[in-house]
Amino acid sequence: MTPKEELHRRIKGLQDMMKADECDAVLILQNVDLYYFSGTMQNARLYIPVSGEPVLFCRKSISRAANECPWNIISINNYKYIPEKLGELGQQLPERLGLEYDVLPVSAFLSVKKTFPKTELLDASNWIADLRATKSPFEIAIMKKAGKSMADAFSYVPDLIKQGLSELAIAARVEIALRDHGHQGCIRMRGFNQEFFYGHFLSGPNGCISGFNDGVTAGMGMGAFFPQGPGERRIQINDPVYLDYVGVFDGYNIDQTRLYVVGVLPHRLKYAFQVALEIQETLIDQVKPGVVASDLYERAIGIADRAGLSQNFMGYGSERVKFVGHGVGLELDERPVIAKGFNVELEAGMVIALEPKFVIPGMGIAGIENTWLVTKSGVEKITILPDDLTVIPYDNILLSS
Amino acid sequence: MTPKEELHRRIKGLQDMMKADECDAVLILQNVDLYYFSGTMQNARLYIPVSGEPVLFCRKSISRAANECPWNIISINNYKYIPEKLGELGQQLPERLGLEYDVLPVSAFLSVKKTFPKTELLDASNWIADLRATKSPFEIAIMKKAGKSMADAFSYVPDLIKQGLSELAIAARVEIALRDHGHQGCIRMRGFNQEFFYGHFLSGPNGCISGFNDGVTAGMGMGAFFPQGPGERRIQINDPVYLDYVGVFDGYNIDQTRLYVVGVLPHRLKYAFQVALEIQETLIDQVKPGVVASDLYERAIGIADRAGLSQNFMGYGSERVKFVGHGVGLELDERPVIAKGFNVELEAGMVIALEPKFVIPGMGIAGIENTWLVTKSGVEKITILPDDLTVIPYDNILLSS
Repeated sequence: MTPKEELHRRIKGLQDMMKADECDAVLILQNVDLYYFSGTMQNARLYIPVSGEPVLFCRKSISRAANECPWNIISINNYKYIPEKLGELGQQLPERLGLEYDVLPVSAFLSVKKTFPKTELLDASNWIADLRATKSPFEIAIMKKAGKSMADAFSYVPDLIKQGLSELAIAARVEIALRDHGHQGCIRMRGFNQEFFYGHFLSGPNGCISGFNDGVTAGMGMGAFFPQGPGERRIQINDPVYLDYVGVFDGYNIDQTRLYVVGVLPHRLKYAFQVALEIQETLIDQVKPGVVASDLYERAIGIADRAGLSQNFMGYGSERVKFVGHGVGLELDERPVIAKGFNVELEAGMVIALEPKFVIPGMGIAGIENTWLVTKSGVEKITILPDDLTVIPYDNILLSS
Repeated sequence: MTPKEELHRRIKGLQDMMKADECDAVLILQNVDLYYFSGTMQNARLYIPVSGEPVLFCRKSISRAANECPWNIISINNYKYIPEKLGELGQQLPERLGLEYDVLPVSAFLSVKKTFPKTELLDASNWIADLRATKSPFEIAIMKKAGKSMADAFSYVPDLIKQGLSELAIAARVEIALRDHGHQGCIRMRGFNQEFFYGHFLSGPNGCISGFNDGVTAGMGMGAFFPQGPGERRIQINDPVYLDYVGVFDGYNIDQTRLYVVGVLPHRLKYAFQVALEIQETLIDQVKPGVVASDLYERAIGIADRAGLSQNFMGYGSERVKFVGHGVGLELDERPVIAKGFNVELEAGMVIALEPKFVIPGMGIAGIENTWLVTKSGVEKITILPDDLTVIPYDNILLSS
């Protein structure tokens, strides 16, 4: 349950942003934002006026919403009655109303427009993204606990990776370990068309295959209809085995990548892995409030260049992506983005995943990813699992089939 | 791989609809529609003119798109250059351009509007939904294979349900069986704010808990942040155990619910289960091309009424949902909806999930769900697992803890 003071602080934060832009109210429709500002994720709309307390208009389940959300809850069977209900509450209709333009479908937008015919609509998504980028102590405590659960679940991984088994078969068994530690399953992404099922468990050259998604890797996946993540390829001796899986515990995403090998990692991948660790170390030495996100990216690029791996950093050749990290929270793709052109200063309370990775064509991918809390003086590691390359003992090798 | 003739037929179907409404072109942005009309799900936009072949503008991965999609593929690094590229191809810019209003975020819509400043934009989502409602023999073959995989995976379920284990622990083990049979994991839903992680594994009174989602059940889930699906509740003797899980194989969703009990099912639930089976039998006797969807719903309501269970049908009291079935395909929530007011005639090739269910407060839920193909003369069952209530042998009962 989200404490009322916590929700109050979030609402107040948004209201300050609204005031600066003369916005009279924001209407929240999307599930994750709804949970962030109301503490509940039921079928509801949250009306946040520029001053005073929000009102939750709820279709169902009212009883669950009432249990989780401290705001005034109004039962409604059709959201077109919101203006009428606002009138009954003695509230004036807004002249300017903010909406989540980044996630709201056109049809939902047109329906709100019809409901508020005289109101000017505007985009509230930047406010929400900026507000959510900085985590509160309440959120940070949840994310630290998630880091512990993720490390505990990953402790089973070395025993699950066996030569001869398919990526999918191993991935399924990693997933059961995650579920047993309370993983919620659904990974939520804000970006249009983005989706993720646990993450990318990729072996050997499959690590080099890119796809539609915004990240470095995709892998073969199951086919053209689900072109990312583990597929049918079977683990071979000396394969790099790349496990970029997302933990989602108590609603919060954390992002972690570890590298394994059954046997001996080819020299070029071992070298790339060392450079990735060096980039990580350099970046976390730099990270503190006031540091500019794009400067961190340039710093990473510089190290990759000097190591002779510029063509391999964050993808290969023309398919390189231009970032080295991203915010995480209730969604996997939050702010800040540690990317070219993202000239924003880091703040204490931001939680970022840093993921320096190198694609070595024909061989695979080597890299590291951890989730970090930006503190007043530096960083604190959320994903506490050790970073080392894990060498799988030879007795894990299947003798038959 | 989707055959070229299959893609041709789909494009032709859309073009016929466009012609009737004087629409010059449709621009497809959403992943699932992209896959349906192009055979690939890479980072791309598909431009479908009212006559002639489509053009795929692709950012990445070009090589994967080229391997999967037979249309002309143009590499592009920013979609704002589409009009320019169309010019180079000798195509006139559209006067009227259709877009997926039901799924396109406002920000993406505004960006298309800026790219085509002189073009009138219109809603193409109804055309796409209607076209996708009727499956081709190619699609039907995939869905039948999915039904077999789902039955095979579910054959493990009776051995997994044990008194004393939590819903989540059992669900995780059902999920591994599904993955081992090729389940892709991600369930795709078209409705705004809808999401699903495998489905609802619910025990005892948890079956009565509704939530934000459009279906009958929600369950407790993991907490306010993920308020549906299996949770921490442990299975008790004589609990109804309700397993409504979605199979997604080769991209296609099928929907199936089965009922289990460790011990003896309470009489009232047993009675409700029998009525659900009776409704199913009556409906499938009725289903054939030309039958109106809403008539089927009324028929179901009538049987529930006569059985004295009208307050329990598809939810309880004020939280009843007003449907008894829905189309399934590349997304879980397709047309037709077998619902009040949905006055549409069934056609051969439609694939629908029928799910008569009864909520008995304080006790749980009893019901059945199968996925059916509408044939020229009636129906064919896609989810071939037997419908019976499964009684779990007592020796599955944990003696300790």
